[in-house]
Amino acid sequence: MDTPITISKRGKPARQTNHLTIGCLIFPRMDQIDFTGPFEVLSRIPNSTIHVIAKTKSPLRDIQGLILTPEMTIAEAPEFDVLLIPGGYGQQELMNDEEVLSLIRKHFAAGRLLFSVCTGALLCGAAGVLRGCQATTHWAAWNLLPYYGATPVRSRVVVDGNLVTAAGVTAGLDGALVVASFLRGDAIAQEIQLSIQYAPNPVFHSGAPDTAPAEVLRAFNESYSAVAASRKAEARRFAAILGVAV
Amino acid sequence: MDTPITISKRGKPARQTNHLTIGCLIFPRMDQIDFTGPFEVLSRIPNSTIHVIAKTKSPLRDIQGLILTPEMTIAEAPEFDVLLIPGGYGQQELMNDEEVLSLIRKHFAAGRLLFSVCTGALLCGAAGVLRGCQATTHWAAWNLLPYYGATPVRSRVVVDGNLVTAAGVTAGLDGALVVASFLRGDAIAQEIQLSIQYAPNPVFHSGAPDTAPAEVLRAFNESYSAVAASRKAEARRFAAILGVAV
Repeated sequence: MDTPITISKRGKPARQTNHLTIGCLIFPRMDQIDFTGPFEVLSRIPNSTIHVIAKTKSPLRDIQGLILTPEMTIAEAPEFDVLLIPGGYGQQELMNDEEVLSLIRKHFAAGRLLFSVCTGALLCGAAGVLRGCQATTHWAAWNLLPYYGATPVRSRVVVDGNLVTAAGVTAGLDGALVVASFLRGDAIAQEIQLSIQYAPNPVFHSGAPDTAPAEVLRAFNESYSAVAASRKAEARRFAAILGVAV
Repeated sequence: MDTPITISKRGKPARQTNHLTIGCLIFPRMDQIDFTGPFEVLSRIPNSTIHVIAKTKSPLRDIQGLILTPEMTIAEAPEFDVLLIPGGYGQQELMNDEEVLSLIRKHFAAGRLLFSVCTGALLCGAAGVLRGCQATTHWAAWNLLPYYGATPVRSRVVVDGNLVTAAGVTAGLDGALVVASFLRGDAIAQEIQLSIQYAPNPVFHSGAPDTAPAEVLRAFNESYSAVAASRKAEARRFAAILGVAV
């Protein structure tokens, strides 16, 4: 199993006492809990406002059909102190979307906290912000990070200055607790954890490739093979664009 | 920390090979991850259809403002094989809602799987279905279960025949994996767990009252005191209605 957290030599985001404006990007065919997990934690940070943003204001569906509704468009969004970029299969359709990539690029270039969950890291990679950074993503996409110029780290949460990346899907909960602790201190994060009774204790230990039964891993890899190939081709294309030698 | 699971002498829900119809109730001021956590798992059960239902078809907001949209009303809903009842502060406003209580009562009386998360258990209690059952709920409401005729059990997930109750908020993920394993076998549940990388590893261990720092527990209890008093009064009222001696 991955370690809980790795913090690079660049350190971690600074504690802030001002009001925090938090933005969460949503998009069609995303994985909803990449967003709803962090929302559960980040929306409870004292003295903060959380905004759900998308390319348009229309309701959209996650990969399993859940209806999610944004409150404002990217064009209408204010500057955020924290920007959450979730992942899921729909991330692939945004890899060449200049509006989304520009949002990520400008936010990070301004020295603000960028928080990706799962393959949201690949969107950050497409925006060019992973170059020279330590990062993580869903275990099945972890091998793609070098194509975006990042050094993959086997931790549930990887912190490299103002870049916080969480591993796959449900790792967004762990990542959001870390973000809350950086911004407001450990006690606030711990109180949120207590209120949402986040003392996870699954009956199976099949959440990582090194702990899952072999036949379970094989079944997953078979069902994932087409997406894996598509993501690999995309990563190769980006390595060329970004001038990354892999 | 609570044990992962307790299964009563009544045993567990039977494995099913037929197509499964799963219903998830949503309501205003609920805690969204009580629903979105289980949705993440249950929507991935092979050969199943998942429906999000509410009293009306209008979009509603969870306690932190997230917009959730149902697909059908309770009146339009088919018979479900599995019914999910989430919790959160908004549960209190439904404790006397005969449409919701009747939905729960009829579903359970028909011998179908009822799955509550967090204080969704109190709604099940108000419907009268907890009498004589072992159950759990959010740790801060755990002491109320006897007023509804239930025996509280300190486990993340408690299984008593066709009644599956999960502890607070994020315990819905653990509960949903258990439900998936009962209905379709361990390998299916494990494959879902692997795909959503559910290998939780939080940096803090503050998710339960016995592991949280004392000052964190005190801060939570202070902020919760008004809701605690209201829920206690409601529980006493139900004990009288249900004829439960506490």
